[in-house]
Amino acid sequence: MNSYEKITIIGAGNVSWHLASALDESGCSVVQVYSRSAERAQNLAHRLKRTKPTTSLDFADSSATLFILAVSDDAIAAVARQIELPERSTLVHTSGGQPMQVLSEAKTDQIGVFYPLQTFSKQRTISFQNIPLCLEASRSEVLGGLTQLAQKLSTQVAEVDSQQRAVLHVAATFVNNFTNHLLRMGEQLLQDAQLDTTLLRPLIEETVAKAQEMGAAQSQTGPARRDDEKTINHHLNYLKSYDSVYAEVYQLLTGHIQHVFKNN
Amino acid sequence: MNSYEKITIIGAGNVSWHLASALDESGCSVVQVYSRSAERAQNLAHRLKRTKPTTSLDFADSSATLFILAVSDDAIAAVARQIELPERSTLVHTSGGQPMQVLSEAKTDQIGVFYPLQTFSKQRTISFQNIPLCLEASRSEVLGGLTQLAQKLSTQVAEVDSQQRAVLHVAATFVNNFTNHLLRMGEQLLQDAQLDTTLLRPLIEETVAKAQEMGAAQSQTGPARRDDEKTINHHLNYLKSYDSVYAEVYQLLTGHIQHVFKNN
Repeated sequence: MNSYEKITIIGAGNVSWHLASALDESGCSVVQVYSRSAERAQNLAHRLKRTKPTTSLDFADSSATLFILAVSDDAIAAVARQIELPERSTLVHTSGGQPMQVLSEAKTDQIGVFYPLQTFSKQRTISFQNIPLCLEASRSEVLGGLTQLAQKLSTQVAEVDSQQRAVLHVAATFVNNFTNHLLRMGEQLLQDAQLDTTLLRPLIEETVAKAQEMGAAQSQTGPARRDDEKTINHHLNYLKSYDSVYAEVYQLLTGHIQHVFKNN
Repeated sequence: MNSYEKITIIGAGNVSWHLASALDESGCSVVQVYSRSAERAQNLAHRLKRTKPTTSLDFADSSATLFILAVSDDAIAAVARQIELPERSTLVHTSGGQPMQVLSEAKTDQIGVFYPLQTFSKQRTISFQNIPLCLEASRSEVLGGLTQLAQKLSTQVAEVDSQQRAVLHVAATFVNNFTNHLLRMGEQLLQDAQLDTTLLRPLIEETVAKAQEMGAAQSQTGPARRDDEKTINHHLNYLKSYDSVYAEVYQLLTGHIQHVFKNN
């Protein structure tokens, strides 16, 4: 099994920012952080204990054994081709949306994926303890090493292959991106009716708490669930004069809720 | 200002269940609970301190001064017409989806609305403390009495007229019913890929916590937000072969996210 005590992080975006801190705090040595921008590399390195910033992708003489590529999806393949690695080192990416094989042109056959299933922003502190870390590797000794490392950071470590990870990424889009957008649509409706948007907060919190406890299939309520056509039509009439896309979203989701409950 | 210390609750559904307990605990006297079903009325009355069950809508001799109609939307007008009330008593309903005037044929001109903006299930205990109570009344002395009562139960009391309440109800459908359905779609995607659905939990929790803290407009991330057409097409290809409605939902919400960010 490989051992990953010295790590270099490529990229200085949201994921790097949080992952580097978590690795640092867990006692790993983040030896270098790379960014094309010297300033960004420096900003990140300064937050860590013993980390040097760099703007060069030549790591041939590095003491690191693991290189974590946390750059945008579009850049992964190009950086993987370009990067110079020390012998017998491992290269992984952190993307939910990319297969492991996007690293196939790297100058190592020890490749893998280290995907933290979470939404990151620099403004929010977040504990890695509960973040599912989804791992994949080209070799069992790499998987072993990544697993050992992941377990230092989180209690939730899972082996997830590229196909499954692609599904996870789609599902994450539904429960994160789309849910967030529905919350925004709700806020907007209230603002435009001169209502305080905080009125919806307790409902939003309970919605999620209830779905997590009971499962979303069991916790569905509302006019679509009970086939209450009168209320549905009231709502649609209002929305059609408010914003036609709101009405479309309403109609599509209402129809699908009715459909899944009819067929269960 | 009216004083509502003795209260009768009409209906034994989810709202009655939770509201009756909250009133009881706040020191109000729930003198009677009505249900068409003697068994349901009894079940609810048994959970309260000094409450009698009834299946009759003749309350002419009741000592209650406030009658809370917590029946299904469709039944409100009919029950309001039918109910016999003591003189100078007040009748309110608890529905987000109905105007106050649905009570106009009741044998009192003291009418109003007492709408708790929350999702209720009998299986979940919920504190009224943080539930927004949205009030409306036909007279200022009724509004005063309802406000005093509401403040015994919750720290969030707001005056909301029938038109605004209709908007609140639509918005609640987005942030509760539709959000819950998106969570279900996410769960379903994982199940069908043999993935553990608990993998999404930390993401779901953070999604909501982040939107509540930063506001949903600021916390939007993902392929639609960054116009990442490559990922969007990957996702859509997968969804089209998985379930065409999933693909439609994806397309509609992605398009709308792109639209609102282009126009802001």
